[in-house]
Amino acid sequence: MAVPDPSSDLIQRAAVVRRAAMALGQSTDAQRQLAVVAMADALEAARESILEANRADLDAAALEGLTPALVARLKLDAAKLDAAIAGVRQVAALADPLGRRQLHTELDQGLTLERITVPLGVVGVIFEARPDAVMQIASLAIRSGNGALLKGGREASASCAAILEALRGGLAASVVSAGCLELLTSREESLGLLKLDGLVDLIIPRGSNELVRFIQDNTRIPVLGHADGICHLYVDQAADLPQALAVALDSKIQYPAACNAIETLLVHQAVAADFLALAIPAFGQAGVELRGDAAAQALGVENPATEADWGTEYSDLILAVKVVADLEGALGHIRSHGSRHTDAICTTDQATADRFLAAVDSAGVYLNCSTRFADGFRYGFGAEVGISTQTLPPRGPVGLEGLVTYRYRLRGDGHVAGDYASGARCFSHRSLPL
Amino acid sequence: MAVPDPSSDLIQRAAVVRRAAMALGQSTDAQRQLAVVAMADALEAARESILEANRADLDAAALEGLTPALVARLKLDAAKLDAAIAGVRQVAALADPLGRRQLHTELDQGLTLERITVPLGVVGVIFEARPDAVMQIASLAIRSGNGALLKGGREASASCAAILEALRGGLAASVVSAGCLELLTSREESLGLLKLDGLVDLIIPRGSNELVRFIQDNTRIPVLGHADGICHLYVDQAADLPQALAVALDSKIQYPAACNAIETLLVHQAVAADFLALAIPAFGQAGVELRGDAAAQALGVENPATEADWGTEYSDLILAVKVVADLEGALGHIRSHGSRHTDAICTTDQATADRFLAAVDSAGVYLNCSTRFADGFRYGFGAEVGISTQTLPPRGPVGLEGLVTYRYRLRGDGHVAGDYASGARCFSHRSLPL
Repeated sequence: MAVPDPSSDLIQRAAVVRRAAMALGQSTDAQRQLAVVAMADALEAARESILEANRADLDAAALEGLTPALVARLKLDAAKLDAAIAGVRQVAALADPLGRRQLHTELDQGLTLERITVPLGVVGVIFEARPDAVMQIASLAIRSGNGALLKGGREASASCAAILEALRGGLAASVVSAGCLELLTSREESLGLLKLDGLVDLIIPRGSNELVRFIQDNTRIPVLGHADGICHLYVDQAADLPQALAVALDSKIQYPAACNAIETLLVHQAVAADFLALAIPAFGQAGVELRGDAAAQALGVENPATEADWGTEYSDLILAVKVVADLEGALGHIRSHGSRHTDAICTTDQATADRFLAAVDSAGVYLNCSTRFADGFRYGFGAEVGISTQTLPPRGPVGLEGLVTYRYRLRGDGHVAGDYASGARCFSHRSLPL
Repeated sequence: MAVPDPSSDLIQRAAVVRRAAMALGQSTDAQRQLAVVAMADALEAARESILEANRADLDAAALEGLTPALVARLKLDAAKLDAAIAGVRQVAALADPLGRRQLHTELDQGLTLERITVPLGVVGVIFEARPDAVMQIASLAIRSGNGALLKGGREASASCAAILEALRGGLAASVVSAGCLELLTSREESLGLLKLDGLVDLIIPRGSNELVRFIQDNTRIPVLGHADGICHLYVDQAADLPQALAVALDSKIQYPAACNAIETLLVHQAVAADFLALAIPAFGQAGVELRGDAAAQALGVENPATEADWGTEYSDLILAVKVVADLEGALGHIRSHGSRHTDAICTTDQATADRFLAAVDSAGVYLNCSTRFADGFRYGFGAEVGISTQTLPPRGPVGLEGLVTYRYRLRGDGHVAGDYASGARCFSHRSLPL
């Protein structure tokens, strides 16, 4: 599909956000903190109208026959809204990610280099349903000094409009301009956003793998997102089997739709019979369909796994099971089929654990614990911008750090490069305290 | 232009590099250091055949009538080769960028999170001419544990083949596999490289803006490069004028083809007459053509600047000159026309300096010094992978850090997420020493 150029109206509105964001970038930590608190207060005040707007969206969804999963994501009841507002207040309380000096070097006498964290500028966020995510990401953007263009799913349009109205009202009651947040409503605007290079610095898609892939293929703007979460758990011959079973169950069933849930269980042949004797009934009781290779089927797994199963993110109560000859077999399978999201091993053997943790090239490599810990809150970041499966930083669960970049500041007193090229002066490159 | 899919031969060769790179990623600091020294030794031993191959490339270039600038970049004489080999030895001596612990947190008793630097995997590098750059980037890749697919310019094909043969020979004499470096030779391979997602983690184009833009538009793989270097120097009303002139001259003429040379000089109206009275003859003597707006022309700048001049990277001895009303006028011009590379101010007024350094949203913002300092060596990084004008990190001059990412390692003892969701256990999120 060809992506149309952004309309001049969209370009103009994005330029307004950019200007507002540049002013926001000059604000103090306290001003940004107060602005986010004002956003939370305004959401609180608009509680009834937001809930009402959400009911309107839900009514429309019922008429259109949306899937139960989508309706569940769309639904914003009082409890969910209160939790989201509490989340906004938590974002206000996060430590300031801006103005941190990451590097401080004297290049020569009187010529001093600093590297300082600064906001990205403007982020573009495209949501599918999930009106609660709008509050989260908008508050993260403001806390870190960024403007945001927000495009909610069509099915959440009334909810998003009510939320944005409240958020902008909150900003208007602070020193931060309401112009820092702008809601995009049409599909054309959402496509146009992809071509706003120079006005938008990062695109964050929050939705299906298909959405993320479409966006990655159709923009030059960097994208923070993960296209696939094909996570593995390898049960080694030296695993504590009951512990491995608990980890496997949690990794699959604690929230099967999550990207950090496992899709494939790899079991060392030496313990496959014993482990599957425990695991088959346990997964069966949990309602999980197991699909095994020939060896796993021979040990009691009922359904066969085809080649396609090793590369499928089920996001459901289905788990592929493969018996491997040894650790290298597990590593080879993960290398061929993994999505470099999060992969775990259960073993009590130190050398095996070390080899797995060093050799698996994923954003998260875990020992004797559930893959479900791959999450910004659980990592202690206080908030999560998203999870990234790209190789380059930011990788894995990304907190406020993902909305921040840096700038080099160099202060001199008439220093010119020619003096160093000619040898008249020499660099000292002396590290200074941060 | 449609980018063809990579041939199965190319995919196979890239997979070999990837496997070799994964083994390299497990090597020790000392092993990688020795490998890079072996590369330098092998270049030394192959000195004559490399110089001969370069002479063959130069002969072919003469026949084809290449531009003098391109011939200058292509030429590898004994001095340039020796300097490049010395550069490889310097890369060997750089501090190990791998295995650094960036984060260390106890999530709960017995559940410990670390963030550790690791290699990217495989980098794809596309050069125009510049055979010396091949040695630099290949040694940086090996030092940081990465494999590399290297595509030299067609005009440098004999030089690149001789260099790669030496580099691979050097690796073969070390514990690192020669398979970590692979030379691509045809245009088809260079296009195919752009579609090797999953096998290549980063593409580094070293060439013209057009090359960089073409690559950015035709790959989903992240690209480290800068598309434009439109740098500004603003001479404030409180500038030390003779110092500002020295900075302006160095910023323009020290190496006009560099991306960090200035293209536009902005002068405060209050000092425009005095400054231009000094600057016009000085730039004239240096052979620089000045192109001014109406106000600058009224003060003696001979040629007119058109709107297009403010957005042109001359890469030549041409400088656009604009008289601005005040600091805000300068900031507005830079915001509209800059490429967020490097911009400088000359002023002795602290408040003005602070405002400029805070408000200009470029990778480098400088006070009273030449924009030509925007360079990895000058910043003290010891080597430069490239300069990036993207907003996200890595930004500006990028050293070895740009070839490194990180991985989260989580070690537990049967910890499952369900216990935290149910409240049975609580996160401690206690920072541990790095």
